Amino acid sequence: MMSKLKLGMVGGGQGAFIGGVHRIASRIDGRYELVAGALSSDPERATQSGLELGLSLDRIYSDFHDMAQKEAQRADGIDAVAIVTPNHMHYPVAKAFLEAGIHVICDKPLTSNLEHAIELQEIASRCDCLFVLTHNYTAYPLVRQAKQIVAQGDIGDIRLIQVEYPQDWLTTDSEHDGNKQAEWRTDPARSGPAGCLGDIGTHAYNLACFVSGLKLEQVSAELSTFVEGRQLDDNVHAMLRFENSVKGMLWSSQVAPGNENGLKIRIYGQTGGLEWSQEYPNQLQFSPFGKPTQTLTRAGNGYPDSLAHLVRTPGGHPEGYLEGFANLYYEAADCIIQVNDGASCREVMNVSQLPKIADGVDGMKFITAVIASSDANGQWISIEDI
Amino acid sequence: MMSKLKLGMVGGGQGAFIGGVHRIASRIDGRYELVAGALSSDPERATQSGLELGLSLDRIYSDFHDMAQKEAQRADGIDAVAIVTPNHMHYPVAKAFLEAGIHVICDKPLTSNLEHAIELQEIASRCDCLFVLTHNYTAYPLVRQAKQIVAQGDIGDIRLIQVEYPQDWLTTDSEHDGNKQAEWRTDPARSGPAGCLGDIGTHAYNLACFVSGLKLEQVSAELSTFVEGRQLDDNVHAMLRFENSVKGMLWSSQVAPGNENGLKIRIYGQTGGLEWSQEYPNQLQFSPFGKPTQTLTRAGNGYPDSLAHLVRTPGGHPEGYLEGFANLYYEAADCIIQVNDGASCREVMNVSQLPKIADGVDGMKFITAVIASSDANGQWISIEDI
Amino acid sequence: MMSKLKLGMVGGGQGAFIGGVHRIASRIDGRYELVAGALSSDPERATQSGLELGLSLDRIYSDFHDMAQKEAQRADGIDAVAIVTPNHMHYPVAKAFLEAGIHVICDKPLTSNLEHAIELQEIASRCDCLFVLTHNYTAYPLVRQAKQIVAQGDIGDIRLIQVEYPQDWLTTDSEHDGNKQAEWRTDPARSGPAGCLGDIGTHAYNLACFVSGLKLEQVSAELSTFVEGRQLDDNVHAMLRFENSVKGMLWSSQVAPGNENGLKIRIYGQTGGLEWSQEYPNQLQFSPFGKPTQTLTRAGNGYPDSLAHLVRTPGGHPEGYLEGFANLYYEAADCIIQVNDGASCREVMNVSQLPKIADGVDGMKFITAVIASSDANGQWISIEDI
Amino acid sequence: MMSKLKLGMVGGGQGAFIGGVHRIASRIDGRYELVAGALSSDPERATQSGLELGLSLDRIYSDFHDMAQKEAQRADGIDAVAIVTPNHMHYPVAKAFLEAGIHVICDKPLTSNLEHAIELQEIASRCDCLFVLTHNYTAYPLVRQAKQIVAQGDIGDIRLIQVEYPQDWLTTDSEHDGNKQAEWRTDPARSGPAGCLGDIGTHAYNLACFVSGLKLEQVSAELSTFVEGRQLDDNVHAMLRFENSVKGMLWSSQVAPGNENGLKIRIYGQTGGLEWSQEYPNQLQFSPFGKPTQTLTRAGNGYPDSLAHLVRTPGGHPEGYLEGFANLYYEAADCIIQVNDGASCREVMNVSQLPKIADGVDGMKFITAVIASSDANGQWISIEDI
Repeated sequence: MMSKLKLGMVGGGQGAFIGGVHRIASRIDGRYELVAGALSSDPERATQSGLELGLSLDRIYSDFHDMAQKEAQRADGIDAVAIVTPNHMHYPVAKAFLEAGIHVICDKPLTSNLEHAIELQEIASRCDCLFVLTHNYTAYPLVRQAKQIVAQGDIGDIRLIQVEYPQDWLTTDSEHDGNKQAEWRTDPARSGPAGCLGDIGTHAYNLACFVSGLKLEQVSAELSTFVEGRQLDDNVHAMLRFENSVKGMLWSSQVAPGNENGLKIRIYGQTGGLEWSQEYPNQLQFSPFGKPTQTLTRAGNGYPDSLAHLVRTPGGHPEGYLEGFANLYYEAADCIIQVNDGASCREVMNVSQLPKIADGVDGMKFITAVIASSDANGQWISIEDI
Repeated sequence: MMSKLKLGMVGGGQGAFIGGVHRIASRIDGRYELVAGALSSDPERATQSGLELGLSLDRIYSDFHDMAQKEAQRADGIDAVAIVTPNHMHYPVAKAFLEAGIHVICDKPLTSNLEHAIELQEIASRCDCLFVLTHNYTAYPLVRQAKQIVAQGDIGDIRLIQVEYPQDWLTTDSEHDGNKQAEWRTDPARSGPAGCLGDIGTHAYNLACFVSGLKLEQVSAELSTFVEGRQLDDNVHAMLRFENSVKGMLWSSQVAPGNENGLKIRIYGQTGGLEWSQEYPNQLQFSPFGKPTQTLTRAGNGYPDSLAHLVRTPGGHPEGYLEGFANLYYEAADCIIQVNDGASCREVMNVSQLPKIADGVDGMKFITAVIASSDANGQWISIEDI
Repeated sequence: MMSKLKLGMVGGGQGAFIGGVHRIASRIDGRYELVAGALSSDPERATQSGLELGLSLDRIYSDFHDMAQKEAQRADGIDAVAIVTPNHMHYPVAKAFLEAGIHVICDKPLTSNLEHAIELQEIASRCDCLFVLTHNYTAYPLVRQAKQIVAQGDIGDIRLIQVEYPQDWLTTDSEHDGNKQAEWRTDPARSGPAGCLGDIGTHAYNLACFVSGLKLEQVSAELSTFVEGRQLDDNVHAMLRFENSVKGMLWSSQVAPGNENGLKIRIYGQTGGLEWSQEYPNQLQFSPFGKPTQTLTRAGNGYPDSLAHLVRTPGGHPEGYLEGFANLYYEAADCIIQVNDGASCREVMNVSQLPKIADGVDGMKFITAVIASSDANGQWISIEDI
Repeated sequence: MMSKLKLGMVGGGQGAFIGGVHRIASRIDGRYELVAGALSSDPERATQSGLELGLSLDRIYSDFHDMAQKEAQRADGIDAVAIVTPNHMHYPVAKAFLEAGIHVICDKPLTSNLEHAIELQEIASRCDCLFVLTHNYTAYPLVRQAKQIVAQGDIGDIRLIQVEYPQDWLTTDSEHDGNKQAEWRTDPARSGPAGCLGDIGTHAYNLACFVSGLKLEQVSAELSTFVEGRQLDDNVHAMLRFENSVKGMLWSSQVAPGNENGLKIRIYGQTGGLEWSQEYPNQLQFSPFGKPTQTLTRAGNGYPDSLAHLVRTPGGHPEGYLEGFANLYYEAADCIIQVNDGASCREVMNVSQLPKIADGVDGMKFITAVIASSDANGQWISIEDI
């Protein structure tokens, strides 16, 4: 693990969302170093974005073809590129890097139409490069455990798959209200012919296939657009027929008030059922027929060793535990920079909400007082007497 | 944000837990680079651990005094040190770095006894260095919002604080069963006189003080040791008297089966109440008296802009969202390394659970079929006909 | 409220389920007295069942025509009849009583086919009798409040209705295993052409219409039978089109392991959403768009006065509160009967789990000890010293 | 079961709360008939209340001594009396009936002071009458199952008991605001020396003893009164020492905004844990150490046959199911009375929210349409074409 893999990125310049997510993801385990990027097709924005991320000027590109070619020629060229552009650019960018022999990590959906998708598959197969599509929900530890439970036959032959992904952020016509995310996601030119369907319906579909291991055979669907003037669907209703006579339903919506990112899957077989919700990702309900439902937890009792590499904190510590720590480091960095710039430590700490040494002293006083009280058969002990 | 802060670490060599957490936390936002470490007092283990983390040999130390001195003298010396040793070492290590003029980020509890804690406070105050104690729970976004709600007076004058932190991992005498974490945490020599009290009771106490903004005045306590042969307490019961006649209770336990990390705080004032649980960190219950309880969500409706820097994903995406992405990057790194070592892409991908280009094509077929079905008034469409 | 209404019942003899539910329901508020019944078509079973329920012999019938005629002629004849037979008998029984001028309270579904239903509607309209169909889920307090919220426009114009009712009790072919409930519900001769659809799908459908106030216009459906040899559907998937371009989905299933009676409705409008689950009937989630979700509770803050007659206990006391009390009365009745039959009070109480006077004394000692301890600044007080 | 037990009641006249609860409880299973009452000490109110409940004039009393004496002398005298007066009257009333040889069902707390409690115990023991104290929470089906699990040793030797009962209804000084319930419960003359402690703290205490089967040995407590001018405690904090070195905590409060009736118990033993909350009474969490937590449900998988008499509906039907039915019967009674008084059926039904025959016809159309659509491979079917 001594040397990090070299990573490039296309898309993800200032103001973008998913690019930042990919960068954080690539940093968490310290196995990648971002060394090159065509972060924007606008040269100035590309440069600014690159410098902010610490790239050296000679590896900041505004043209992805240029980047693919040059990086392929460098001895220290990138091992892989992360593609985080709007959907319609996935195809040309991926093509360029694959043909340059560079592994691709590409955000979903693969492309904005089927033809491009099939073509890309052919190119990837010809180029013998890795192509990873970031269907991120498949990599939650308990989703993997769910897949394993199904594969082991612990719920018997599958009969039913109910999957849904409701959101509410497009309840009003925010695309005409200056919301950039809303703009491109409801624009057929940039998103293709599918709105809610392409954006989150495909996540629900992919999750159903991933966990069940089944192929879909037929679909009967109803797309709706509830917000006046919207150009793409904002609600998807579908009935599903999978192989082996398995039936299912899929609902995804972006106009369901009260739902943030309510991705949820329920799978029922001859001898048991499973239920998992993305908003509570650390619990998986497992219901063997005729027995009480069990709550399986991430890294908890019964979590398989084979999936240990997917968890970084013990059971009961939600992943926010790491981000809580990261928030302290983030704020500490702010403080250090201020002090490096000449501010006094005392003042910097005083205005910060960081836990301080005084909190530590306080904690030690608490410990001492508790022990004293317990030793004195529960007598009330004053902290100031400690 | 162009140049990263230079970070050192003391403790956290191979096999340690909290050191890894600190390293991930420091990487998430890309603002630190780990460049030096005294990761173990055993020279060989220190070297191996350092090389694994990509440190250069001249900045791998086995003696923390040596490290403090040398890093202070280097032009490119560390900006800050993260101290992640067992508790009894916090004091000498922090002292060494503070006196060398290096900022300190120290795991909790501050020290293993009160004298050292007070001494350290004096040293820190004299040295004018930053000292950050990683009471990580205070940095959850909704904990910060809770504190803000209290400070704004939205629940009125506080009356009651109920805080608890139950776990179950010490239900049996695992310290005599080869569990390293159990060993040092139940050993007075390494943990000080407090077991469960120091390990997690202090977290509960700190959280109560942080959110309420109140100082504790008196405590009446009962420490218990339920597991035979255990040398420190494994359960803490305490009644609390805070300033302003506020009353409270604190329970922490490591012998409560079914609890993983059940840190929970409830605060009640004259006009409202708040409830937050660490295992479901993205929800905060706010109950204005006489009105329905509201569920506040991380980055959701009503989340304050002033706390925006604490969140990295939109509302409804639990922090596990980032780790799901990180898991893809982690597994992709494995694949890339195998391919770099000569394996074929096809084979590598075939045995991996990573989402593949075929999944992307599949997704595009699904989109196409759904649109076709919806256009045909819900007619069942076969995927293979797409 | 001095005199009770006189109630008759058809069906509901020994071993039946829903008849007992109707009887309890009629007793809870003390407004009915069961005085007549044709509880079985088998004369002997009818007599035994009637005597058990305290009916006088002259008002125990085995023929419902006979009962309708005679009760209509009596001066003290029944005010209303409760029909709790299998589905295919609803039609002739209701017809007989309506034509005799007696009000009808009839279990759902109305009949086992549409022709009979329409005919019955005509008869009822001609006879000027009350006809109440026990779609019981519409009478939960929070379902009524949900309907009111919708009607007041608090979620705006409705767009989406997601309703589901999963169960698991028919996961295996229990109808061939001696389960009487399973037998008649999967038998077309007694249940009509719909299995899961008629049994619980209609509840889901009715609830959607009731809360929304909307009429269904079109349906696209998929009925499945997963258990081999079963004669009727055990899973229902349907897409719905309501008036006003409202879309919906309905899922009901009897083969979904882990689900007991998971009736759930979610309604989304232009400005808000609602969610209610039968298994947690005392909470209603109300999500005004752009604001935090509120948890409305039965008889809690914001519960409308106009619905006060639907609740019998304060907020936070689930309806089980009444049944807990009823359990004490039930067990006390057992004790009293034993004592009336000659047993000694002491012995009877000793083997019972009823709370006893000693528990009361114990409680008073606890109160006394708590007060003493509190008065003595928290000193530990021994109960035996009280 | 042919003849009902004859029940009398003392207290519970117009406007009272708990009397109504007892009456409903006594009616649910149809084993009691209320035939006599001293519902108020005010003769006029006693008479009115009695007539409303259908008592005959000669069995309506305003003096409980009179009632005890006369009922004891009647051949058809009451089998048992339910005492539902304010706490301070429990003692004299119970004494009178016990000495008259009549079984007693008495609301809790037993008395308003310990002396009376002990005296009553002596009287009851002398009189050989049944004395049932309505600690109603002990009769929830899953509380009984919890007790059974403990008794069977399924969680091993108990170590810890955490019990709490928070409410919020006395957050403000509603006793000076015309709230009758608040008035007597905060009045030492009527409630005795304990406020929140006597009202709900004793419930929590009793539940802890009932489920664990343990006796309390010592208590260390802190009573608080947060609302200015209040005469009794409104918050109870206590640490508990039970026999066998079991430790515990008890919290009860009436000033905790957001809590309705949050009675909750958690018990931890050497090999497992249990958790039950009154507001969600149909779920019991059972955590065998080292295995996933199981959700046990009322009448669900694993529910013991020996407790079958405590449930009246299948698993997954909360007790509100019966009240939903009862609400239909309640509203139907209103309709029938209106019709009996001359109103037209059509008009009465039109203004009612009762499900009507048209709903039944509608349901049959839905069934027919679903079957037609499913038979036509999911073709959309118009309801109006049915």
